Amino acid sequence: MKQIHGGNTCQYPDILDFSANLNPLGMPDVVRRAVIASAAQWEQYPDPDCAKLVQKLSDIEKIPPSLLVCGNGAADLIYRLVHAFRPKSAVLCAPTFGEYAKALGEVRCRIREYYLREEDDFSPKEDILSLLTPETDMLFLCIPNNPTGQLTEPILLARISQHCAENGILLVCDECFLDFAEHAAEYSLRRCMIENAVILKAFTKLYAMPGLRLGYAVCGSAMIAERLRHSGQFWSVSAPAQTAGIAALDETEFARKTVERITKERRFLAEKLAQMGLRVYPSAVNFLLFRGNAGLDDRLLREGFLIRNCADYSGLGQGYYRIAVRNHDENLWLLAAIGRCI
Amino acid sequence: MKQIHGGNTCQYPDILDFSANLNPLGMPDVVRRAVIASAAQWEQYPDPDCAKLVQKLSDIEKIPPSLLVCGNGAADLIYRLVHAFRPKSAVLCAPTFGEYAKALGEVRCRIREYYLREEDDFSPKEDILSLLTPETDMLFLCIPNNPTGQLTEPILLARISQHCAENGILLVCDECFLDFAEHAAEYSLRRCMIENAVILKAFTKLYAMPGLRLGYAVCGSAMIAERLRHSGQFWSVSAPAQTAGIAALDETEFARKTVERITKERRFLAEKLAQMGLRVYPSAVNFLLFRGNAGLDDRLLREGFLIRNCADYSGLGQGYYRIAVRNHDENLWLLAAIGRCI
Repeated sequence: MKQIHGGNTCQYPDILDFSANLNPLGMPDVVRRAVIASAAQWEQYPDPDCAKLVQKLSDIEKIPPSLLVCGNGAADLIYRLVHAFRPKSAVLCAPTFGEYAKALGEVRCRIREYYLREEDDFSPKEDILSLLTPETDMLFLCIPNNPTGQLTEPILLARISQHCAENGILLVCDECFLDFAEHAAEYSLRRCMIENAVILKAFTKLYAMPGLRLGYAVCGSAMIAERLRHSGQFWSVSAPAQTAGIAALDETEFARKTVERITKERRFLAEKLAQMGLRVYPSAVNFLLFRGNAGLDDRLLREGFLIRNCADYSGLGQGYYRIAVRNHDENLWLLAAIGRCI
Repeated sequence: MKQIHGGNTCQYPDILDFSANLNPLGMPDVVRRAVIASAAQWEQYPDPDCAKLVQKLSDIEKIPPSLLVCGNGAADLIYRLVHAFRPKSAVLCAPTFGEYAKALGEVRCRIREYYLREEDDFSPKEDILSLLTPETDMLFLCIPNNPTGQLTEPILLARISQHCAENGILLVCDECFLDFAEHAAEYSLRRCMIENAVILKAFTKLYAMPGLRLGYAVCGSAMIAERLRHSGQFWSVSAPAQTAGIAALDETEFARKTVERITKERRFLAEKLAQMGLRVYPSAVNFLLFRGNAGLDDRLLREGFLIRNCADYSGLGQGYYRIAVRNHDENLWLLAAIGRCI
């Protein structure tokens, strides 16, 4: 099956890309400069343990290095987790990020889907707990969920986490987009972390460096971290990615500025789309799911805008689209184009 | 189990590293400059298909793009191959590169080892064919083998390849070091390629860019390439790696110069080691396996030289060491230190 993801700008080089969910502030200059200055290190094998990066993450996140594992993007860690634990039965939300199902398919895992309901704005509800049986080995939860941008209520997350602990389910919480949300800490699994859990985080999105590939996992126990660390190849994280990560962590104001910008622009976009009569689902982050007429993406493509057609997501269908929140002028241009295309 | 590989210079920063087998000519300057000039691309997702790099490889290697797959280093492709084909039974030489067994372990594959014999200078012989039964799903062959540096005789390789075709065995030929050998083309599986085979190649070693992570696979059929391409995450090859690969392929004289330098220095090193009374095994490439007294690596470490203790290789044991062929002065320093340590 052909995989579909946003950000396919190689195929459309002269397009304004609203399909990839990157930080509109762009990559911090200090990251670019640090990578360029480290060119001599490209001639050596990268540190397989990413020791300097892990130490810095540990200092900033207040998590012991023994619980941290870096990967070639968060997507790399999804596959390594699945290969390390080889679940036989897993639960996914639908719709959600497609790489979970694809990774689980590589170990022939049975997947049960929890269908998020449109009438709940695709937000998970208590009935998800009924799927968390002792036969379940793994649960992937994406907070905020991709492509809906919905958070999971902290009180429900705590119950999910407790259910996973009681039933021996490995809870994998993908928080790659959580840095874009206001009051992010309240919604993180960190608040109700269990031993049998892994939080996935990315540098890709917040620091707009998807070309460099860097993500990390915060594990609930050193045993889980050790299994994840030894899953897959010895040198998965490149030297430029390690350098970039270390430099990015010095950008202490960047996340705050990003959230301010994103929150303002997301509200603006959502309001304008709603005024055009489009159904917009509430999002906490830097992308929005909305409903429009079939073929809207093709018409926008002819206008020079790439948006994500969500028809391939299990649990969605024709007429659902995801757009990234970009800078104000770009958002205005997109809105004008949508106005012409609907 | 703790993995062991050469090139662990993070742990020993002020050491002269003979444990990693990189090109002593270093990374071509054109590669470094191309990567630095491409910094703007780090803000976008890398092309998941590596289309430009694949096209250039296709033009140079005279192989259709549909048979080429790029990876995050050749090691990434080993794991993706194993996860894509999930062999139940595989054959490996012993000693050989450790990542094959580790990758096979991730799918619980039964491994049978073909023990290379010291009296044959660790070169594979006809009796390897007896292991290539219809029950075998996969054979990893490393040409030249790591850590011995030995080639497989072309006439034997042709028979192995034929046996694999007849018995439905996927033949994976790791030619990551073959570019360092004289008359390399004569020893490549390319001369007796079958549909059911994959050749692994690296940019890492020849172009001394292991920090950037780039390898590729030449597949015997589009079906195999397609399965390999869709195994693992969507964006495994970073933007800097793709840029570096494209630039490196313009360095048409680099491989020839490298082979000249390596051949001369390897002969020099081998001769001097033999003169010290050490048993040196014949190598075709940029590293040498030799036998010395136990603890030689520790004594050399105190002198400032890191060499690869091969005691952890299945089929070897205490007293086997691998050294890279470096530049003449560096080789002289190592020889002097070995002289003091044996």
